[in-house]
Amino acid sequence: MGGADQVRITRRSSMTANGDNVKENHGGDTRNLPVDAVINLDHGDPTMFESYWRKVGDECTFVIKGFESLSYFSNPNNPCWFLEPKLEEAIKNLHGAVGNAVTDGYSIVVGTGSSQLLQAVLFAVTTSLEHASQINVLSPAPYYSSYPEIVDLVKSGLYKWAGDAHEFDKDEPYIELVTSPNNPSGVIRGSVVNREGGVLVHDLAYYWPQYTPITSSLDFDIMLFTASKCTGHAGSRVGWALVKDKEVAKKMIKFMEVNTIGVSKEPQLRVAKILQVIAERCKRFGSPEGDDFFEYNKSLLTERWEILRETVKKTQMFTLPKYPLQHCNYTGDVTQAHPAFAWIKCKEGIEDCEKLFRDHKILTRSGRRFGSDPGFVRVSMVGRDEEFKLFIDRLSMI
Amino acid sequence: MGGADQVRITRRSSMTANGDNVKENHGGDTRNLPVDAVINLDHGDPTMFESYWRKVGDECTFVIKGFESLSYFSNPNNPCWFLEPKLEEAIKNLHGAVGNAVTDGYSIVVGTGSSQLLQAVLFAVTTSLEHASQINVLSPAPYYSSYPEIVDLVKSGLYKWAGDAHEFDKDEPYIELVTSPNNPSGVIRGSVVNREGGVLVHDLAYYWPQYTPITSSLDFDIMLFTASKCTGHAGSRVGWALVKDKEVAKKMIKFMEVNTIGVSKEPQLRVAKILQVIAERCKRFGSPEGDDFFEYNKSLLTERWEILRETVKKTQMFTLPKYPLQHCNYTGDVTQAHPAFAWIKCKEGIEDCEKLFRDHKILTRSGRRFGSDPGFVRVSMVGRDEEFKLFIDRLSMI
Repeated sequence: MGGADQVRITRRSSMTANGDNVKENHGGDTRNLPVDAVINLDHGDPTMFESYWRKVGDECTFVIKGFESLSYFSNPNNPCWFLEPKLEEAIKNLHGAVGNAVTDGYSIVVGTGSSQLLQAVLFAVTTSLEHASQINVLSPAPYYSSYPEIVDLVKSGLYKWAGDAHEFDKDEPYIELVTSPNNPSGVIRGSVVNREGGVLVHDLAYYWPQYTPITSSLDFDIMLFTASKCTGHAGSRVGWALVKDKEVAKKMIKFMEVNTIGVSKEPQLRVAKILQVIAERCKRFGSPEGDDFFEYNKSLLTERWEILRETVKKTQMFTLPKYPLQHCNYTGDVTQAHPAFAWIKCKEGIEDCEKLFRDHKILTRSGRRFGSDPGFVRVSMVGRDEEFKLFIDRLSMI
Repeated sequence: MGGADQVRITRRSSMTANGDNVKENHGGDTRNLPVDAVINLDHGDPTMFESYWRKVGDECTFVIKGFESLSYFSNPNNPCWFLEPKLEEAIKNLHGAVGNAVTDGYSIVVGTGSSQLLQAVLFAVTTSLEHASQINVLSPAPYYSSYPEIVDLVKSGLYKWAGDAHEFDKDEPYIELVTSPNNPSGVIRGSVVNREGGVLVHDLAYYWPQYTPITSSLDFDIMLFTASKCTGHAGSRVGWALVKDKEVAKKMIKFMEVNTIGVSKEPQLRVAKILQVIAERCKRFGSPEGDDFFEYNKSLLTERWEILRETVKKTQMFTLPKYPLQHCNYTGDVTQAHPAFAWIKCKEGIEDCEKLFRDHKILTRSGRRFGSDPGFVRVSMVGRDEEFKLFIDRLSMI
C-alpha cells in the first residue's frame, strides 16, 4: 500500500493551483491573509477538506428540483420516517467500506448534526430509566467543551451535567459520554466509571482513518457519527446514530419529531451522495491520483502534524501528546493518530496558555473549557492551508 | 384583479396532465389510491403545493457543488452567523412584496423549522426574566397540538406548559403563544391574557394570502414563520423569526448554537431561491397563466373549501367555522379565509368525531389533542388532489 509520497506531491501542486480561486463566507476569510491577521483556531471548522472536494469535481454536485421533497416524510415504512433511504444506504456502505462500525442489527437515526442526537439520546435514556431525580451525565476530563452546555441548556428535569467522570463517586444512575478519539486530546478512550446503572454513549465523530488507526469495527450500544468530521461538510448539519435497542431508537425519533420535526431533506440527500462517492473511492486506495478520500486527507494531516511536531521541538516551549503506533485495518499501515485538534501543553511557569497564543494573534480554546488545566490549549488542525502556515510561522516565533 | 377563473382552468388541466407521473416517498402514496385506502389527513403535509412548483420548472432547481458550504459559518459579520445572507435578503423581499410583516429594524433568526425557533424563544425569554420558578407557557384552546409536547419535552426548569390561556388565573409571569391564523381553527387571534408580566410570541405560520386576507403588515415583538406553510417545502425544515429586541435575538442564537450548531446550509440556500421566485412572481398577479404563487394556491384552496362547504351542507352531520369577509391588501379582493385545516364539529350526539372519521378510513386529529372537545376534528386541506377527492367522496357518504 505504498504511493503515499506520490499522492502527497500530486495533491500539493493541485492545491496551490486551486487555492487562490476560492471565495466563500466562513469564520473569517483565510485566503490571502494579511501577515498580521488574527487567525481563529478555536473552532474545528473542517475547511481543510475543501481541496479534496474541489478535486473530485462534478461527481458530487447535488441537484434538486423545486417540486421535490416537499413532504415532511422521507420513508413512512421506517420508524425513523424522516431518514432518507439513500442516506441510510450510504451510511451502511461507508461503514462497511471503512470497517469502523457495525451496522447490521442497528437502527439508524439521523440528526441535525450529532449534537442534536446526543440530546435525543439523553431524552431516550432518561425517560426509560425509572429514577426520581435527574440522571447524571459525565465524561472524563478533558471532555468536549460543549457537553456541559448541551446537557444543561434548558435545565432539564431529566438529566444534569455532573462533570468529570474520574471524580464521580455517587451511587446513582449515570450516562457516560465516551468520546473516542477524544476531543480535545485525540486519544482512544474506553469508559472510566464501569459501575452498575450506567449507560454508555460512544461519540465516534473522529473514528475515521484520516485521524486515527482503525483497529476494529465497533459495536457499542449507542454510537454517534457526523458528516462534519467525516467528510468535512459541517455546514450540512447531518449526523447519525447507530442504536442497538429499538426502544431507545424509538424515543430518540420522538425527540427529533418534537425538537425539529425531523431533519432537512436536502443535506441528507447531498450527504448521501458524498458518502457514496467516498465509499466507492475506497476501492481506489493507493492510486497515484490520491482518489481515496481518507488516504488523501490522512496524508495532509500527517504532513501538518510532522510540521507541528518539528516546530514544537524547536521552540522548546510546548509539549504535544504522543500517540501509540497501531495497525490500521483500513490503510494496512502501522501508524499513529493525526487528530483534528492539537492538544498543546505550555511549559511549566506559563499559567494561561490561551492568553499566550492570543498575544500572538492565534485564537485557541483554553484547557479550562474542557474541564482541564489553563496550561493547555486546543488548536484546530483542519482549517485551510494558509491559516495553518501562518499558525506555524507564529508558533515558531513564540 | 380578475382572471381567477381562467387561472383555475389552466391550473386544473396542467395538474391532470402531470399528476400521474409523480413518484416520491411521503406519508403514504396518494396517487392512484385504491378506493378503500386509508387516507391520512392527520398531518398538515403541504403536498398540495407540488403542482405549482412542477409548473414553475427549472427556475427553482437548486444546485450545489461538492466543495461548497463546508464551513459551519454562513456570515461571520451577522450575530446570527449561521444565517445565509441570501436567505435573509429573500425573507425581507418576500415580506415586502406580500405586506404581511415588517422586517425593518428586526433581527432575523433562522431555525430548523419554526418549532425549533419556538424553543429558542422560550429559552431566550425565560433566561432573561428573573423568576425563581418555571415560567408559564399558555395558548387559548383550541391550541396547536404540538405546543404542550414542545414545551414539556425535557421537563425544563425554565418553563412549563400551563394550558389554556382562557383559564390562566395566576399572578405569575407568562408567555402567551398567539397563533394567527390559528391552528386548528383558522381564525385570526389576538392575545387573551393581557396582563402585566406577559410576553407574547406570534406564531404566524399561516399568515399568507393563500390562507387568509392580509389586512396589515404586522410588527409584533416576536414573529415566527416557516417555509413549510408558506411555500409548501416542509421537508426543508426552514423557519425564521423576526425579533425586535436584539438581546432576545442573541439568546435565541445561543440556543440554536447549542441545540444544533446552527441550521443546514443547503435548505437555507434552496428556500432563499424559492422565496425570491415567489417574491418576483408577485408582480405577475392576475396573469392568465397563474404565475403568482399565492393567487394560484388561493384559487386551489378556495375551490376545495367550496367543495367541502357544499358537501358538509348536504350531509347535515357537521359544521364548519365561518370566516368574516375582509379586504385583503395583497389580492385587493374582499375575501374570507381558506385555512390549511378544516376544524370540523360533529352534530350533537356524536361524542368522538375522530372515531367516526376513522371508521370511514379517514385519519384526522381529535379536538382533544388541541385542548378542546372530542366532538371536533382537524382535517388537513393541503394534501394532494386525489386524497382530497377521496375525502370528499367519503364525507358525503357519512
